[in-house]
Amino acid sequence: MAQQHLEPTHPTAAAGSVPADALAGYLRAQATEFLRALRLHRETGANGTEGSGDAARALRRAARRISGSLHTFQPLLDSDWAESMRPELAWLSGTLALEHAYASRLERLLQALHRLSGPAAFPAQSRGARVTDPPGPAAADRGHLTVGAAKAGALLDRQLTLARTRAHSTALQALGSSRFHAVADKVAVLASDVPLAAGADAADCRPLAAAAEDRLTDAVAALPLVTAGSPYNAEALVHGLSPDPAPHPQDAPWHQVRLLLRLHRYAREVVAGGEPPVDVRTLAAGEALDRHRDASEAAAAAAQAARTPRIAPATAYALGVLHADQRHEVEAARYAFQHCWRKEAVGTP
Amino acid sequence: MAQQHLEPTHPTAAAGSVPADALAGYLRAQATEFLRALRLHRETGANGTEGSGDAARALRRAARRISGSLHTFQPLLDSDWAESMRPELAWLSGTLALEHAYASRLERLLQALHRLSGPAAFPAQSRGARVTDPPGPAAADRGHLTVGAAKAGALLDRQLTLARTRAHSTALQALGSSRFHAVADKVAVLASDVPLAAGADAADCRPLAAAAEDRLTDAVAALPLVTAGSPYNAEALVHGLSPDPAPHPQDAPWHQVRLLLRLHRYAREVVAGGEPPVDVRTLAAGEALDRHRDASEAAAAAAQAARTPRIAPATAYALGVLHADQRHEVEAARYAFQHCWRKEAVGTP
Repeated sequence: MAQQHLEPTHPTAAAGSVPADALAGYLRAQATEFLRALRLHRETGANGTEGSGDAARALRRAARRISGSLHTFQPLLDSDWAESMRPELAWLSGTLALEHAYASRLERLLQALHRLSGPAAFPAQSRGARVTDPPGPAAADRGHLTVGAAKAGALLDRQLTLARTRAHSTALQALGSSRFHAVADKVAVLASDVPLAAGADAADCRPLAAAAEDRLTDAVAALPLVTAGSPYNAEALVHGLSPDPAPHPQDAPWHQVRLLLRLHRYAREVVAGGEPPVDVRTLAAGEALDRHRDASEAAAAAAQAARTPRIAPATAYALGVLHADQRHEVEAARYAFQHCWRKEAVGTP
Repeated sequence: MAQQHLEPTHPTAAAGSVPADALAGYLRAQATEFLRALRLHRETGANGTEGSGDAARALRRAARRISGSLHTFQPLLDSDWAESMRPELAWLSGTLALEHAYASRLERLLQALHRLSGPAAFPAQSRGARVTDPPGPAAADRGHLTVGAAKAGALLDRQLTLARTRAHSTALQALGSSRFHAVADKVAVLASDVPLAAGADAADCRPLAAAAEDRLTDAVAALPLVTAGSPYNAEALVHGLSPDPAPHPQDAPWHQVRLLLRLHRYAREVVAGGEPPVDVRTLAAGEALDRHRDASEAAAAAAQAARTPRIAPATAYALGVLHADQRHEVEAARYAFQHCWRKEAVGTP
């Protein structure tokens, strides 16, 4: 099976060979970047400042690139080593990503509440803060839905800040664990010594990079792009009131394409020996799929918050509007994806 | 001022003259149609059957056409007579339209609730019926949002059916009133004798029809068509959580274009001496604007229902999703309007 992948069967592989040494160089560079980010993270004290946020981001970035390259180019690497390394890197980048994800989800939802409340209805100073002084009956009657938006914002703030704080603690614990130290030790070794598979020295990286691109192309071809390309198809909200707590299996193929696009991007970096030429299509498509993922998760968070016991009807109403708004963002992101994907596909000779 | 309109200054008027007699013929035909529909309405007993619905629709249709023609071609008609007739016809068609409007609004909202609940979440048999047996705590916990959708449907059904019943009574009272009999008498006279203005016999209908088209074109040009043509512009929901009970002044120019498009259509009928050749653009644009109006009013009804005191949070949540869904329908209708309007404008030589 590994041999099958090593054959230069793919048409794009004919343009020239990229030796396994390029992969080794890429992995060494990413491992070095990982160690640099880790050092920076320890120096900034993991205290939630901007510096520690940058360091955590760089750490995740390097971990994702090492993990992705192990996946795409596994036949060229020592298989026992690669198989033991990947889940550990996935655990690490997943754990580190959560805190940031909760923070940006809250930011997205509060911004949407502002937008939906019109210019002056939802005062900026209450954003991200508790509503400590609920208005009296008269104000509640007059500004019913504004109160709802403010209360919805306060509820989301409470829930997502709590989740973020927990994710922060979990990340700190993870970075102090023996499990993490074992990963860091392996990455330190990788920075100087990449365990290639026996006989891989003479192999070409291009067919495996091409295979990653094929997996992406196949997954995109399986997406409902015709529907997505028809504006206002109302597809994304079709389970907006479903009793299923995870009612959006329709999102999964899009999330999958997002991951395959990322693997394709890393494979291009390997083949290019660093920063590949800017591919506008990949860039725009990736942004659309990030937006798709963020809106999908924000919509789920709004629906989840609406299940909080004993909330006021006005709060629940605002969360319903917010949920639907984010599901339409999901639909808009799909439209944007198919638009840039097709436009570029037509433009490509 | 009337003289100014009578001058054949408009370029499209050059193609040939349409005498005021064509207007008189059109008004006589519509008056005859009005009387026929009224007779049918009395025969079917105004009992809410399909026949009486058809009769009421035909009555409204003729009343709108007479009223619209009096407006567009007022300089050709006896002004005292036209000025006394128009508000009476507007009152009549407005009164007769309400019952149908409430019924179709409820239908639209219940269909949307079904669509949003996914294939099986909102049983078809509960549609349009009271939820007489609320599920017990276990079912309520398991199917939280389905219960919300069902309760929202029941609440809308109760409120809009009540409004419809009241509108039905009001329409019956109107049809039995002396005010209505005065209108019907005037229409009966109109069926044989159209009071043209002095000297209007020699006038041309075309410039006034062209002026109606100009008013439409000007109003369309003032619409935010560039925004509407950009899919997922999120404009329609921008006041989705506003405390203002009438937060959608942005809809008004579109409603106005809908009325001007209707006047243009009737003016074309006058000039064509009956059924004008099918104008795909006017047809499609009119359908888009009808959908715009319907979705706008349905969204308002969902928001209004959410202000009902003591509703459950799950009900309010469902109404929030429903409101946002209908506001997106508003946005979709604007997109559809600009699409067909521009496409045809480009295609016209």
